[in-house]
Amino acid sequence: MNNTAESISTQAQVISKEDLLKHWQGHRSLTRKVIEAFPEKDFFEFSIGGMRPFSALTSEFLAMGAPAMKGIIERQEEAYQENSDVLTTKAQYLEKWDEATAEINKYWEQLKLEDFDTVFNLFGAYQFPVIQNILYLIDNEIHHRGQGYVYLRALGIEPPYFWER
Amino acid sequence: MNNTAESISTQAQVISKEDLLKHWQGHRSLTRKVIEAFPEKDFFEFSIGGMRPFSALTSEFLAMGAPAMKGIIERQEEAYQENSDVLTTKAQYLEKWDEATAEINKYWEQLKLEDFDTVFNLFGAYQFPVIQNILYLIDNEIHHRGQGYVYLRALGIEPPYFWER
Repeated sequence: MNNTAESISTQAQVISKEDLLKHWQGHRSLTRKVIEAFPEKDFFEFSIGGMRPFSALTSEFLAMGAPAMKGIIERQEEAYQENSDVLTTKAQYLEKWDEATAEINKYWEQLKLEDFDTVFNLFGAYQFPVIQNILYLIDNEIHHRGQGYVYLRALGIEPPYFWER
Repeated sequence: MNNTAESISTQAQVISKEDLLKHWQGHRSLTRKVIEAFPEKDFFEFSIGGMRPFSALTSEFLAMGAPAMKGIIERQEEAYQENSDVLTTKAQYLEKWDEATAEINKYWEQLKLEDFDTVFNLFGAYQFPVIQNILYLIDNEIHHRGQGYVYLRALGIEPPYFWER
């Protein structure tokens, strides 16, 4: 191992690549629990204030997470596209969720530390450093999942603990 | 400058310390806009499904952000304490918000890159690496602010764009 490689492997980081993945997948695991907590019908139909039902929000998460990572790794600026699969049951959503989990892990492995700082035009529309694109994926999921918590409470259902990952 | 210092200053990072602060303060700036978007009365009274009104959520953010950073920097494990000030108007909340913004910036400056990986018992109760404690502060705010978006929509008010920071 040369000195450069050594100094990279032992350098102090705000967060390590591995820990950021763990953080994201922890959030994705909580979102999965929120999907599970919805009654089948309410997952597709319940909403407040004209907002989208949680199934539509989940479609957005699915269209963002793994496809974004694929784009980042393959430097492919394919446009954002929702509902390429039409899913009609919670079970189908959960199956796609788990497929996305594995895909994200697969692409993450191929990310290099230097990539995070590299500007990439995600979905051909969001020209930001990769780290910002990734944080947006995570934050957007937390944001809309918070919306799902209100739906569950309004339905009289106790949501999973926020710190449960 | 010796070699070690040089390699630290030029090393590849998943995210830099400066960018993580910018990210957090960007979110805090959005939360400020959400506070502003609430009618005075609804900020203190409106809720859905037995959840807390947005003023109470804001009290939580105020009790977490700056006090947590103070604790981390001073290695002081003082217990979490909400509502040490009793705030009764939106204007008072916004004033405290801006004070907290400055405090967070001040403590952030004193954080060293090596600190992020150090385990600290935040509020004498959350024994985690500092980076995890900080991400929790950010995520918790995004999560509950998402709840605020539903309140605003249910009130017929257009919330600020999520990507507006």
